[in-house]
Amino acid sequence: MTDQLAPEIEARIRESFAKQPMMETVGGEIVEIAPGRIVIEAPIREGLRQQQGFAHAGLIFTLGDNAAGYAALSVMPPGSEVLSVELKINLLSPGLGRLVAEGRVLKPGRRLVVVAADVWGVDESGARKLVAALQGTMIPVTV
Amino acid sequence: MTDQLAPEIEARIRESFAKQPMMETVGGEIVEIAPGRIVIEAPIREGLRQQQGFAHAGLIFTLGDNAAGYAALSVMPPGSEVLSVELKINLLSPGLGRLVAEGRVLKPGRRLVVVAADVWGVDESGARKLVAALQGTMIPVTV
Amino acid sequence: MTDQLAPEIEARIRESFAKQPMMETVGGEIVEIAPGRIVIEAPIREGLRQQQGFAHAGLIFTLGDNAAGYAALSVMPPGSEVLSVELKINLLSPGLGRLVAEGRVLKPGRRLVVVAADVWGVDESGARKLVAALQGTMIPVTV
Amino acid sequence: MTDQLAPEIEARIRESFAKQPMMETVGGEIVEIAPGRIVIEAPIREGLRQQQGFAHAGLIFTLGDNAAGYAALSVMPPGSEVLSVELKINLLSPGLGRLVAEGRVLKPGRRLVVVAADVWGVDESGARKLVAALQGTMIPVTV
Repeated sequence: MTDQLAPEIEARIRESFAKQPMMETVGGEIVEIAPGRIVIEAPIREGLRQQQGFAHAGLIFTLGDNAAGYAALSVMPPGSEVLSVELKINLLSPGLGRLVAEGRVLKPGRRLVVVAADVWGVDESGARKLVAALQGTMIPVTV
Repeated sequence: MTDQLAPEIEARIRESFAKQPMMETVGGEIVEIAPGRIVIEAPIREGLRQQQGFAHAGLIFTLGDNAAGYAALSVMPPGSEVLSVELKINLLSPGLGRLVAEGRVLKPGRRLVVVAADVWGVDESGARKLVAALQGTMIPVTV
Repeated sequence: MTDQLAPEIEARIRESFAKQPMMETVGGEIVEIAPGRIVIEAPIREGLRQQQGFAHAGLIFTLGDNAAGYAALSVMPPGSEVLSVELKINLLSPGLGRLVAEGRVLKPGRRLVVVAADVWGVDESGARKLVAALQGTMIPVTV
Repeated sequence: MTDQLAPEIEARIRESFAKQPMMETVGGEIVEIAPGRIVIEAPIREGLRQQQGFAHAGLIFTLGDNAAGYAALSVMPPGSEVLSVELKINLLSPGLGRLVAEGRVLKPGRRLVVVAADVWGVDESGARKLVAALQGTMIPVTV
């Protein structure tokens, strides 16, 4: 893969991302975008926590799913939208700080795109701790 | 397992659930509670949708995770809290209507509790469609 | 689904199964075959054990994968072969006795078939214990 | 992690590996061993193939499981054995050539060790293709 994403593909990803009310609810932002690789950041808003004050697994999953999904979309043919087929998440440490989700393509394909994502918790000093690892499958759908 | 949950275990589950800001954000409610089995319902709020207007996979995961987690907690020793170790989700159809997540214990254990959850979409006529199937692992933690 | 499998589909499954050298190596046999549901049995041969004398996770996976895969093939169009896209296995108890793997279709589909399988250990008295639960995705391929 | 594995831990891994009849059946050999990282190689023996002549998913899983499991054992306290709790495998391309499974530790822990493994197919020229990616959980057991 080249390092530069075609402008129409980047536009398609940003447009799809902007149309997700969920990303507004969680405060998610795309901070890196490259072929087969997307990084999304979000704070841990009060309303998205679990009973002990950490990020709810559902928030961690949401960010990992989106990072992986848009990484997949970046290698799909023009005119595609992306659908999550399945994802597996291992939760490694409590979600604390600012969350950074890095999605990447393990294997592109016409019918299926295999993806992975890591979700990190970053504290105020910039130190990062791995919060979750995801692995899964995305498919292109025609819109 | 017997059909009746000990009152202190039911209280522990309801208390933990009530302490999750995430459940308030998604409008989740426990509608059934039995040993090894919890059912949670939630609407698909506007702010929790993806780009095509369906429930975001993150919302579906959140409900399945909670139903599976509290099903696990229902078979854990008194004084435990529950932590999600890992979960696998297959997304089967678009999330539409009212979501109903049914968590169940596949195998209780002292160190690990293996769980599954189904998430259904229920339309206004009451017809239900399977939206997602989850399988995973929970552990008890001392609080 | 009806209870009776079309004869040409049953023949296709039995033919594909018979062409797998792995099934001969593990001593696997189809013992039930219905639309969306296949049951395979196998002994735990000496050479397929792990370091403590139990069935190797790889043997348990092999049987669950095949049961799930042929359950998927039973709902695929004529002329298809089946390919495992991904599978998740939770190992619940040591593999002992005779292994029985029950595969079933959670959701048929033109592009993807979502499947599950349970693998049981059955002792000489006929008592069964759940050894593993699998969930995954199969796709049709043209041969 | 340091690059050098303590001799007693290396001995424990090699001993456990040697006691697995399954590894003899598949012809598996440890080719690299370091803290949190194990590489296993095996040919694709005729009897371990599927209906199209490729490596059976069960063989690929077996090697990935063992590489991940022994990577986990390398970070466990003395006197432990390792047990696979759960594993997720994505199959990326047909298993061809000589199989090389690289297991690694994503997160060590007292109660749980989170692991990953990649399985490669290597042809006679030495070119390698990613055949499968695994992610899962191992636990220590006292023997």
